[in-house]
Amino acid sequence: MERPADPGASLARLPGKDPHNNPGDVSVDFPVSVVLPAGGTGERTGLQTPKQFCGLMGRPLISYTAQAFERVSWIQCVVVVVATESLALMRDIAQRYRHSKVRVVPGGSTRHRSIRRGVQALREPEEQVGAGTPKVVIIHDAVRPFVDEDMLSKIAMAAKEHGAAGAIRPLVSTVIATTSEGYLDHSLERAKYRASEMPQGFTYEVIHQAYQKCTDYDLDYGTECLHLALQYCGTNAKLIEGPPTLWKVTYKRDLAAAESIIKESLSQSSCVLTGDCPSALSLAASLQKAFTTQHMDLDIIPNLQGDHANYLLKEWNFIQISVNGSLSEVKALLASLQAAERALLNPVVVVWVHLSGADLPSIGETATEPAAISDLASPRLENWKTFCCTVSTSGSVRTQRAGSSQCYVSPKSPQP
Amino acid sequence: MERPADPGASLARLPGKDPHNNPGDVSVDFPVSVVLPAGGTGERTGLQTPKQFCGLMGRPLISYTAQAFERVSWIQCVVVVVATESLALMRDIAQRYRHSKVRVVPGGSTRHRSIRRGVQALREPEEQVGAGTPKVVIIHDAVRPFVDEDMLSKIAMAAKEHGAAGAIRPLVSTVIATTSEGYLDHSLERAKYRASEMPQGFTYEVIHQAYQKCTDYDLDYGTECLHLALQYCGTNAKLIEGPPTLWKVTYKRDLAAAESIIKESLSQSSCVLTGDCPSALSLAASLQKAFTTQHMDLDIIPNLQGDHANYLLKEWNFIQISVNGSLSEVKALLASLQAAERALLNPVVVVWVHLSGADLPSIGETATEPAAISDLASPRLENWKTFCCTVSTSGSVRTQRAGSSQCYVSPKSPQP
Repeated sequence: MERPADPGASLARLPGKDPHNNPGDVSVDFPVSVVLPAGGTGERTGLQTPKQFCGLMGRPLISYTAQAFERVSWIQCVVVVVATESLALMRDIAQRYRHSKVRVVPGGSTRHRSIRRGVQALREPEEQVGAGTPKVVIIHDAVRPFVDEDMLSKIAMAAKEHGAAGAIRPLVSTVIATTSEGYLDHSLERAKYRASEMPQGFTYEVIHQAYQKCTDYDLDYGTECLHLALQYCGTNAKLIEGPPTLWKVTYKRDLAAAESIIKESLSQSSCVLTGDCPSALSLAASLQKAFTTQHMDLDIIPNLQGDHANYLLKEWNFIQISVNGSLSEVKALLASLQAAERALLNPVVVVWVHLSGADLPSIGETATEPAAISDLASPRLENWKTFCCTVSTSGSVRTQRAGSSQCYVSPKSPQP
Repeated sequence: MERPADPGASLARLPGKDPHNNPGDVSVDFPVSVVLPAGGTGERTGLQTPKQFCGLMGRPLISYTAQAFERVSWIQCVVVVVATESLALMRDIAQRYRHSKVRVVPGGSTRHRSIRRGVQALREPEEQVGAGTPKVVIIHDAVRPFVDEDMLSKIAMAAKEHGAAGAIRPLVSTVIATTSEGYLDHSLERAKYRASEMPQGFTYEVIHQAYQKCTDYDLDYGTECLHLALQYCGTNAKLIEGPPTLWKVTYKRDLAAAESIIKESLSQSSCVLTGDCPSALSLAASLQKAFTTQHMDLDIIPNLQGDHANYLLKEWNFIQISVNGSLSEVKALLASLQAAERALLNPVVVVWVHLSGADLPSIGETATEPAAISDLASPRLENWKTFCCTVSTSGSVRTQRAGSSQCYVSPKSPQP
């Protein structure tokens, strides 16, 4: 029952954040495209909606997965293969979240038939973005949203060199062979075996040839692309150890697990706006110190002018500190965020900290401000949340969730 | 990548609720005790606290697991084996949550050494509850909290009959054999293999003999009890298919997944108190109809008198409907709940629905009531939450979370 450590550092970075990890010495300089089979019905989740379309923080799971590929510069095209009845939904998702590399195609009756359809689509003129048929095809699951560029790069490079490559993980449980009567026959020596995961990569020739040669039985009952490459092309895939975040969202509980990872990632940093008042600066410094112990990164800036304006494009969390100020500062911040026209990938959270020298009033007495800040998160602003927090210099803090809006607006222009 | 369906019905019932499932034709009429190794350091979660001690809804994970055994009438004793440094913490948890069947013993340096220590402890006079050395020993993981009585019964019966029994699950991923150079050698035929999970059961003779005969190498590097029973006692364990909820809480994300299961289970039913006013009854009937579509069970009763008093002992959620009433009804309900002196296993949630003929006032204007109901969830009441909801007969609803208390009080008497 032993398993290797789960380093917190292996958490995939979320789409929409600047990638900090630099793949460094590996460099993918050949055309790579992706096939994302997403035809599952989600019967294991016990939900009516297939799990790839379930919302995490208000955004469909598959949009997180698509974005994980979108943000990788050397990936050209992401073919999402869905059931015919989901074509319109998936096209709507691609448009709403500005997935400009995504092409949606109808799938087949089994997983292998859908993947084969996706591979074929990469040769069709209307699916090609730029460089024509790719050198390498990466195949992934729509319900593994946390794949990162480093892993994708390793898979692509190994696929180009060896013809095929696949992610593996240590076995979670002991694997046992059973007798036909349902008794233990023997347990496998765990060190010799691995769990085969996604992503997997293939040269276009290998995956194309494997699907040309394989049988109807393979297409109907098989599941493992690496096996087809071995059986029909004689290609022994190179295996690459992946992080635990490659796990597949399978059960309803996995949706909660995935959301917890996204929330943690989104709450790792915030931008603090202080203006030029010393007491605001002092509070910001205290916040920064306190939040560091929570592994949260706070950038303190006076305002969003000049170079600081880039926070409007990369940060999801803002803390506006006011000293006896008014809501106009929050209004200006929200207007700037709206003007930046970012992709609507994650909720924007704005906390207004209202520094007051007076003793703290009760919630009832401060009700005017929450009501006013609530109005700011109007339907004009999509998926944004505003909070009001009144801090007395006597030291007490009262937080009040004041308003949120889960409405969406259509993007006015492509993502910058 | 195919897996069997995850029936929502297989969600284990939470401790503290009346078990609906009746094991039926199987009946355990022999002494069974449990060894629960809980010495893990939780390195995979990336948390400072070992995961078995992490809080889910304010209560340590291991308390949920212990309760899953406590509520099974035919289980006599649960030996929890912990690291020496966790002895005091675990004893405190056992006392706080009234786990009267739990005995805490210090573990060994590896998983097998800890289990062996737990098995030995079952023979020591001070650990024996009632019938002496058990006929069957069930071994489980502290971090698999959702095991249900039906599964435990199957394991215990099969262990008695065959000497050993273990839970299995279909393989989640394809298992592949690797070459020493890190290439795919072959993939296993999935139908012939299973993942070995917990619980496992053994006759006392088999598990005792296996640990007597096994080598230091086994004790240091082995992990699989079924393997020891086969190798040293010649016992081929009977394998029993378990539900997906048997999964092991391993990573930090699994804590969020486990909490989502607990929350869902806790929100499956509520008791609605209406008094005898027709408009309250009418609202309750509407609520019942609406909640049925959410798979939530609402029992409508006028008050907690007579037979209805048993809701005080089994329900965690109460909706008190008042018609132009006052907080005194909520006060009386909270006082009754406190007087019932239940084990503090889950949060008690009380929602006060205040029916009003007037148009809805703003949050600010109703601030007095939330403040008052907040005071009711005082530190005298442990882990309880109170909410206020004002409903206008014009149809609009405004909900206001008003107060919560996460304080704990020491139980005054053993759990009824």
